[in-house]
Amino acid sequence: MKNGIENGYYHEITPGGFGIAIKAGKILFSKQSDFQKVEVFETESDLGRVLTLDDLMMTTEGDEYHYHEMIAHIPMMQHKNPETVLVIGGGDGGTVREVLKHKTVKKVVLCEIDGMVIDACKEFLPTIACELDNPKVEILVQDAIEYIKDKKDEFDIVLIDSTDPMGPGEGLFTDEFYTNVKNSLKKGGIMVAQSESPFAQSQSVEKMYKQLKKVFPICSTYTSNIPTYPGGYWAWAFCSVDVEPLTYFAQDRYEDILKTCKIYNKDYHNARFALPNYLKKLL
Amino acid sequence: MKNGIENGYYHEITPGGFGIAIKAGKILFSKQSDFQKVEVFETESDLGRVLTLDDLMMTTEGDEYHYHEMIAHIPMMQHKNPETVLVIGGGDGGTVREVLKHKTVKKVVLCEIDGMVIDACKEFLPTIACELDNPKVEILVQDAIEYIKDKKDEFDIVLIDSTDPMGPGEGLFTDEFYTNVKNSLKKGGIMVAQSESPFAQSQSVEKMYKQLKKVFPICSTYTSNIPTYPGGYWAWAFCSVDVEPLTYFAQDRYEDILKTCKIYNKDYHNARFALPNYLKKLL
Repeated sequence: MKNGIENGYYHEITPGGFGIAIKAGKILFSKQSDFQKVEVFETESDLGRVLTLDDLMMTTEGDEYHYHEMIAHIPMMQHKNPETVLVIGGGDGGTVREVLKHKTVKKVVLCEIDGMVIDACKEFLPTIACELDNPKVEILVQDAIEYIKDKKDEFDIVLIDSTDPMGPGEGLFTDEFYTNVKNSLKKGGIMVAQSESPFAQSQSVEKMYKQLKKVFPICSTYTSNIPTYPGGYWAWAFCSVDVEPLTYFAQDRYEDILKTCKIYNKDYHNARFALPNYLKKLL
Repeated sequence: MKNGIENGYYHEITPGGFGIAIKAGKILFSKQSDFQKVEVFETESDLGRVLTLDDLMMTTEGDEYHYHEMIAHIPMMQHKNPETVLVIGGGDGGTVREVLKHKTVKKVVLCEIDGMVIDACKEFLPTIACELDNPKVEILVQDAIEYIKDKKDEFDIVLIDSTDPMGPGEGLFTDEFYTNVKNSLKKGGIMVAQSESPFAQSQSVEKMYKQLKKVFPICSTYTSNIPTYPGGYWAWAFCSVDVEPLTYFAQDRYEDILKTCKIYNKDYHNARFALPNYLKKLL
């Protein structure tokens, strides 16, 4: 079975032979960009509308907060004063929306290689893309590999909200790229990168952490449930030069963040870094 | 799309319109028992063999430890001296296998209504059913609703490893049944019941906890990832008359348990009780 929509169902099956199925409705947008196939479709499900890239699940209206709250608030709440944030990838805008909930933030740079993703999400996924026109947001439609090359001490937080390590996202999983991201961080800065499914993509996870550990003196992992990603379980790398995970919590911002979140709370935050044995072995 | 195997794929789609798909292989066993359709099939996937009941996913060789370690060790490690354990349902034997890792255990009663499930698992899922012939195990092929009625102060731990609240499992989700389970517990006893998917079956979860809270003075919830259940996320109810969760940890048994587990460790154990906001609201 091919990934994508066929006979009324969207399928995404991992190389391991299992995955997800969603009852599909009307296709709202489907075009080949310079980089990938960009598609938004309605579903006849609780998940609402779905964004796929090259027939791989990116996000759904119904469960997007699982991913976006985790990639954003876990690092943001561990930074004392995050003012400048870089989001790499993330053209749907969900990560930017969560980052802007932190009142300390003065500027968010969104560096997305594919302008078609941004345009499609603004039109068809407005609850996710709703903050992309915020005046604090600078949108750069360009390759983050080039953008990051000469940046020194610019960002408090860098969030790598990329696709999988194949296709346009491939260059975002290299030693050279990670080194450039490290150099772009200010003192006390944190990088978080999505790091695939520990259960369904264990080889990718293993490879990625080997690279990250070569570059960052501090490299930890946290995980959470994503209902529409293979295996329902996802990992993020928490990397820094000088910030150990769970050593600081921004209590002064907590109430504001908590009241807007469907997942995130302080206990849940702390619990994210407790990993199952099989994942510890991989890392 | 109907649940079950068609055109080479097994599908389980929730009423919410999304679910899982697995590349299916040879059907090894498929019969209608007095209670349900019992099926074991090979998959062409990392999941190995699969057991379904009425075309609903019960367990797979490839991910069964996610469920069985969580239903067993979370309560067992919070009991000072679990000697007698009752498992209701659980005919595949995975929960019994995990319970028997605790050296304190003298007797496990497995009360499974459908003998065909036990027989099929012994034949086709030997890595899961491997401890069902252990002399400490008493297997009762009977309705747990009847069995539990006159039991007083008999069990240290009761584990309800049931199917969903429809079909043969329905009577295991009632006030009367929970009251009888409560009465069957010894002082310091703990009941854990599988309590469905917080994301994909939120109405079932809400209803079940309302009932449990009427019966048990202490009723808490823990969750973990199950790759092959809808939404990839599962909840268990932790109920007791006198044991608050996370107030005791059996350090003396820990090393023995830890070395045999693919998921379970002490940090992960503690983190299970930190819940996302949307689930807290449901409870």
